[in-house]
Amino acid sequence: MFFKQFYEDNLSQASYLIGCQRTGEAMIIDPIRDLTKYLKVADKEGFTITKAAETHIHADFASGIRDVANKLNASIYVSDEGKDEFNYKNMPKQTHFVKHQDIIYLGKIKLEVLHTPGHTPESISFLLTDEGGGSSIPMGLFSGDFIFVGDVGRPDLLEKAVNVEGSTKIGAKQMYQSIQFAATLPDYIQIWPGHGAGSPCGKALGSLPTTTLGYEKINNWAFNVKYETSFIETLTLNQPAPPHHFSQMKKINQFGMQMYQPYNVYPSSSNTQTAFDLRSKEAFHGGHMHGTINIPFNKTFINQIGWYLDYDKDIELIGDKSTVQQAIHALQLIGFENVKSYRLPQTNIVTSSIHSSEMTGEEHNVLDVRNDDEWRKGHLKQAIHIPHGKLLNEDIPFDKNDLIYVHCQSGVRSSIAVGILEYKGFTNIVNVRGGYQHLPAFLK
Amino acid sequence: MFFKQFYEDNLSQASYLIGCQRTGEAMIIDPIRDLTKYLKVADKEGFTITKAAETHIHADFASGIRDVANKLNASIYVSDEGKDEFNYKNMPKQTHFVKHQDIIYLGKIKLEVLHTPGHTPESISFLLTDEGGGSSIPMGLFSGDFIFVGDVGRPDLLEKAVNVEGSTKIGAKQMYQSIQFAATLPDYIQIWPGHGAGSPCGKALGSLPTTTLGYEKINNWAFNVKYETSFIETLTLNQPAPPHHFSQMKKINQFGMQMYQPYNVYPSSSNTQTAFDLRSKEAFHGGHMHGTINIPFNKTFINQIGWYLDYDKDIELIGDKSTVQQAIHALQLIGFENVKSYRLPQTNIVTSSIHSSEMTGEEHNVLDVRNDDEWRKGHLKQAIHIPHGKLLNEDIPFDKNDLIYVHCQSGVRSSIAVGILEYKGFTNIVNVRGGYQHLPAFLK
Amino acid sequence: MFFKQFYEDNLSQASYLIGCQRTGEAMIIDPIRDLTKYLKVADKEGFTITKAAETHIHADFASGIRDVANKLNASIYVSDEGKDEFNYKNMPKQTHFVKHQDIIYLGKIKLEVLHTPGHTPESISFLLTDEGGGSSIPMGLFSGDFIFVGDVGRPDLLEKAVNVEGSTKIGAKQMYQSIQFAATLPDYIQIWPGHGAGSPCGKALGSLPTTTLGYEKINNWAFNVKYETSFIETLTLNQPAPPHHFSQMKKINQFGMQMYQPYNVYPSSSNTQTAFDLRSKEAFHGGHMHGTINIPFNKTFINQIGWYLDYDKDIELIGDKSTVQQAIHALQLIGFENVKSYRLPQTNIVTSSIHSSEMTGEEHNVLDVRNDDEWRKGHLKQAIHIPHGKLLNEDIPFDKNDLIYVHCQSGVRSSIAVGILEYKGFTNIVNVRGGYQHLPAFLK
Amino acid sequence: MFFKQFYEDNLSQASYLIGCQRTGEAMIIDPIRDLTKYLKVADKEGFTITKAAETHIHADFASGIRDVANKLNASIYVSDEGKDEFNYKNMPKQTHFVKHQDIIYLGKIKLEVLHTPGHTPESISFLLTDEGGGSSIPMGLFSGDFIFVGDVGRPDLLEKAVNVEGSTKIGAKQMYQSIQFAATLPDYIQIWPGHGAGSPCGKALGSLPTTTLGYEKINNWAFNVKYETSFIETLTLNQPAPPHHFSQMKKINQFGMQMYQPYNVYPSSSNTQTAFDLRSKEAFHGGHMHGTINIPFNKTFINQIGWYLDYDKDIELIGDKSTVQQAIHALQLIGFENVKSYRLPQTNIVTSSIHSSEMTGEEHNVLDVRNDDEWRKGHLKQAIHIPHGKLLNEDIPFDKNDLIYVHCQSGVRSSIAVGILEYKGFTNIVNVRGGYQHLPAFLK
Repeated sequence: MFFKQFYEDNLSQASYLIGCQRTGEAMIIDPIRDLTKYLKVADKEGFTITKAAETHIHADFASGIRDVANKLNASIYVSDEGKDEFNYKNMPKQTHFVKHQDIIYLGKIKLEVLHTPGHTPESISFLLTDEGGGSSIPMGLFSGDFIFVGDVGRPDLLEKAVNVEGSTKIGAKQMYQSIQFAATLPDYIQIWPGHGAGSPCGKALGSLPTTTLGYEKINNWAFNVKYETSFIETLTLNQPAPPHHFSQMKKINQFGMQMYQPYNVYPSSSNTQTAFDLRSKEAFHGGHMHGTINIPFNKTFINQIGWYLDYDKDIELIGDKSTVQQAIHALQLIGFENVKSYRLPQTNIVTSSIHSSEMTGEEHNVLDVRNDDEWRKGHLKQAIHIPHGKLLNEDIPFDKNDLIYVHCQSGVRSSIAVGILEYKGFTNIVNVRGGYQHLPAFLK
Repeated sequence: MFFKQFYEDNLSQASYLIGCQRTGEAMIIDPIRDLTKYLKVADKEGFTITKAAETHIHADFASGIRDVANKLNASIYVSDEGKDEFNYKNMPKQTHFVKHQDIIYLGKIKLEVLHTPGHTPESISFLLTDEGGGSSIPMGLFSGDFIFVGDVGRPDLLEKAVNVEGSTKIGAKQMYQSIQFAATLPDYIQIWPGHGAGSPCGKALGSLPTTTLGYEKINNWAFNVKYETSFIETLTLNQPAPPHHFSQMKKINQFGMQMYQPYNVYPSSSNTQTAFDLRSKEAFHGGHMHGTINIPFNKTFINQIGWYLDYDKDIELIGDKSTVQQAIHALQLIGFENVKSYRLPQTNIVTSSIHSSEMTGEEHNVLDVRNDDEWRKGHLKQAIHIPHGKLLNEDIPFDKNDLIYVHCQSGVRSSIAVGILEYKGFTNIVNVRGGYQHLPAFLK
Repeated sequence: MFFKQFYEDNLSQASYLIGCQRTGEAMIIDPIRDLTKYLKVADKEGFTITKAAETHIHADFASGIRDVANKLNASIYVSDEGKDEFNYKNMPKQTHFVKHQDIIYLGKIKLEVLHTPGHTPESISFLLTDEGGGSSIPMGLFSGDFIFVGDVGRPDLLEKAVNVEGSTKIGAKQMYQSIQFAATLPDYIQIWPGHGAGSPCGKALGSLPTTTLGYEKINNWAFNVKYETSFIETLTLNQPAPPHHFSQMKKINQFGMQMYQPYNVYPSSSNTQTAFDLRSKEAFHGGHMHGTINIPFNKTFINQIGWYLDYDKDIELIGDKSTVQQAIHALQLIGFENVKSYRLPQTNIVTSSIHSSEMTGEEHNVLDVRNDDEWRKGHLKQAIHIPHGKLLNEDIPFDKNDLIYVHCQSGVRSSIAVGILEYKGFTNIVNVRGGYQHLPAFLK
Repeated sequence: MFFKQFYEDNLSQASYLIGCQRTGEAMIIDPIRDLTKYLKVADKEGFTITKAAETHIHADFASGIRDVANKLNASIYVSDEGKDEFNYKNMPKQTHFVKHQDIIYLGKIKLEVLHTPGHTPESISFLLTDEGGGSSIPMGLFSGDFIFVGDVGRPDLLEKAVNVEGSTKIGAKQMYQSIQFAATLPDYIQIWPGHGAGSPCGKALGSLPTTTLGYEKINNWAFNVKYETSFIETLTLNQPAPPHHFSQMKKINQFGMQMYQPYNVYPSSSNTQTAFDLRSKEAFHGGHMHGTINIPFNKTFINQIGWYLDYDKDIELIGDKSTVQQAIHALQLIGFENVKSYRLPQTNIVTSSIHSSEMTGEEHNVLDVRNDDEWRKGHLKQAIHIPHGKLLNEDIPFDKNDLIYVHCQSGVRSSIAVGILEYKGFTNIVNVRGGYQHLPAFLK
């Protein structure tokens, strides 16, 4: 049996290709839209991709399950569990809807469907047994957003991103039961999760690519909170606000969107779109175009820009062409295809800044752009609080010419805020470089 | 002034980017559809592409002039000379139609339009003077398919590819006059032609990238045939048959087609398309899939495959993914976007072959796939003649089980023929490796 | 904790980078000589590589452990177990020699050294506990060539490659004891092995990247043969002959060699080296240069070419420049740096061949180039047997002009043999394409 | 005949590959050390490089002429003109020393050697006639550093870089005579120069890749100053100071150095080398490591860093690995191979800056780092003048804690100066962003 994990840094997302050497068939678990990486490996290893499956309707990226069906004419397997209103619509003819304990064979490899709700009502996992390799015991579990390394999937997205009232509590209860069930499986089973560290689909995902069930039973909090009520409380407490694009993802993945194709963009010939500068914050602050917003193209790009995307509006990207192309690709992975143009970096303003340690406490007009959670734990007396994700759409209660000090926790989000403030017409902005964490002790 | 020639090996085609450093503007002459290469240089050099021009309605590749207008919102300049029925239709709003002696300025660079018909009725050239560099004399001529290195453009394409009766003779006469006019320009002028060696837009193009007018006056035959009648005879004699796709190109370039975007293809999931194997002829003959046609992906790829493309039908390509992607891109440059799928090389048949020198003359069923011209100069007594370009559509007068010997001049085209014969159901084919040129002397 | 497996297809070899996010330190387990791939990930993830360890003195590839010490000034950890005469010499000053139950810390990650002899006397494994992640139980075992997926390391290399008499039996006994010890560890432990499918360091390695101890206890033969004598017999029976380069590897890895640097090669200007053609066997047989040897550059390249390398002699490679550079790099991974020049493919001979199914049994001069093992299980009556690995150096008992039929099991090794025979002056060679496995039944 | 210009942006340097299709031979004119780019084209076009020639002993980059001889076993042709003490030493056995009017044949292509001193005493040019193409007249001139587009080679490098007293004047006289000779050649001849815009081998090179003799006769100043004395004055006036590395180049190219091979570098494990930060000046000023020097990796990189290199000392580069590898390669082209290590960008200081327009004239401690020439044309009253190229080695007459304002003409060189000042221990530096050119009018 062939096994390979594909990890998409931009999404903190894992998908898998498994193959049966005896029949030359391969299968993708939780594919992203761009199938290139799977095909490259399948071609090299001599496999034909004949099947794909997904664990649930993803909320954080655009699924490629329909692409596999339509482009490769492969059979696809999706959950038939959960309520109909939350389930898959408009599926291609190659679709098989599967239920708890259904069996899928890929050559001599057996996958047993397990209904493991909690993250979402329809969530399933796939328990793999390598019969072709002579085994009669299961080897591992594709656990999707059910079990992660050190954590489990959050149950509140349906409520927070799609407004299904009461679904958080129901999901948390289901998760408790799903975990009790998983605890009955053998220790030696490998856990192949759907996400890693940095994913907003949980609170505290570990950065290891895989784990084992026995190890998680001992180390994962979810296996160690015995009472349902405590479990639910722990699970639902302090889940961060989901980025703005999650509701769009749910819609895309439930109802479908156009098939993925790459596209080229061209230099800007007008100036009307919101422009995002992909460079490092150092480069941005050393010199940028006034009114452009800095979202550095790194691992957190999607989670950051997700807050500011309107799927009905075009945007412009600023950076060298190669970075722009990578950013466009990353955006396509969340189904956003409206990058209208690009622009090479230009400099007409240098950010004014001071380091947090230079703050005196006498500053007026301090804007704190951290999350609610961070704000609650402590903040400057005189600060106004608007979480960075809401800056673009909310009113900012300063005068356009006020001297404004903007800070976050460590300096990343305030960088974004500087551009948004410029974009909205403020003219006298000071970035507090070190963030709240480096403020002098007497101010905290 | 900035100047760069871009040479597209797959098309034997030259295009140009010029730029005025004083204003930061750049202009493309005779762009192809994929603008990537121009933008890469423009970005690097700090230019904005604000203009493009083309010398004539190309017959051998899909023009990118409309792409420049639509994607970059740049002004484009095309010929307003020649008869209306042969001229540009459906042009974008950014189009300027220019006539003999019109002037175009790119910053401080002056381009004078010269009407230089012959290759086609509307053909124009652009005479460049670098006023920004302090010059009042012209530096060079973008000559399109008027003057090449060592040759001039063929006048017969309109007649042969688009059936405009009598146009060859008219074009040849115009070419004579255009050359007489060019002869009056100064020797020091550089000639920047539209094609190089291997292009089917002329008979005998040199492989140098550029030349000078003074050098051509002495070395190019066209400046040295004094009488119009001899000139016309020399120009029109022995022009090879244009590849099949030329008529499609004229249509595309006169009336427009969709804007260029890259596209991905996926592994074959059915078997119904004509399949072209992109590997070397050695690899193909050492083992290939029965019934697939070998067009190696090298410089002559487009000229070879052009004979076999039907723009209304899908095809499949065989090769590793990277070569397939390059071939798809090359095909897009002639406006063909119907590659349906790809397939990795597979082997179920090894070509039978003998070397020409082993031929005895006693062979029955010899198929000669050379051009008419080559056939006329000498052929095997018992041979049947069908030029390779017609094999796919014409009847082949052998029985499916006959032992057939197939040869061309040097062994390249017979390689293609082997696959076509297999595709048509012949089962007993021998490739004559060395071609006609290596037959024993007593057989010729 | 950060964890990443690096799999080197050319060596079927796995190495690992682990990192402690709390201190920013990273460590390589079983590094190859070229550190590029580790540094790329370390740079991206923000780690500094401060340590490396290796499990044993490798016999199949050139270790990079000294490179890590010398180039990165990192601490390195190697085994101090086993007899001194077989142990590490000439180690750099950054070396720590470790024994059973020694502890190495990388930040908050604990590695416990376990002496697990069998494959070699000094072999150690590293048992990892992620204390930084809050765990007090071990997570996984870097098992080197001790436990593989579905197999264990072969104990006979010291005897077969370096002529240490009696060491096979001793190793097999030690392996039995090491396995009994491993069986006492918990099921949930991940096994991170040193090799995967195709490696000649065992007989039957699985193609999965990792496994768990519990899964192996049930599915790996080594945990299921209870008696020492049966274990030893099973382990030592039918181990294939190690490729020729293994003895050189042992020497390099015990005593050291120069640090890795890339190098360029240039087109051939003479003709004196043995030349290896890197193309597919189809391309080679469709046309090659007489007397050159075909070792296709694919996953088995190193295992094949290893038989024919003399570390004191230069060789030449045939192929396009990019493939040549990859092959040079692969050869550097086994410490071979004598590629003198390259040559683009040229054709002056086409291989004669018949398919196995066309064999009649009447052929004289049949050369069987399979392994001893395959030969013993059955062969053609009239065949002469010389294993392919010995063809270059042994006398071949045919006349130079004899019509020779050469076959192997499936057609790959006979392809190599064709070139060697040509190289040695034979002129009339027929490759039996399908190999022994496709001979007509009545001949077997 | 095949012809291709290779332009090395980092050196503003042109070299050439010409090939004769009739014999398959190719030749390089003025090769750089890394032959990769020539071989790539030769391989693709089917040529074997059998010859190379160079026009003179270069002062601005490390010649690859000896590499061609040693690696490709090709014949090389160098000047035997000029005084022996300034001429080639230690040449490989494949060397041919050529004199005025010697003839070199590459297949059917004729190169006539012309002695054209002025830039250096031994300078030669090669006049090409394409006899294989049927021409009996010359096509073009490889003019080296004799004739450029719009300029001629400077005659003062021998004096300024190698201290040969009086050689400037002699060179200028010779250049006058060489130009008079060139003026007698026909207008239609193409000029293929050794450098383009940005090269310090002349004052005002044009950015066009090639030109014609006729065009230069009219537009190039050197053909239009009739009297020798005026010519000498114009030629020698205001030639900028040659970068520091030029003297090293002369030595390398006269006496030879080791053959080029690529090399890898590794992350820094100590802190003792001078470190150059390759990022944009915006990124550097937005945040950098204190005491590192910013030389952005762009077209002027070599000309800037050349001032600060000591060929006996190691340096460190700061940037992402891919940029570092490119910078290492560029440095190898000037024979510098002492990059010891690299470091990813880190931030512990943000540059203080003001825009020139904010300067009041009241600032104390102003440091002007422009060239002598710029200083002479005007400067701030209170400014101290030290050209940027001397900052590293000269005493800077301020106290370490003084508030220092540093400016250049446009802001590029002051960026470099900031890092040097930090490196030397100054703690209170303000970068004047817009440079002298944007100072308020009342201050100039």
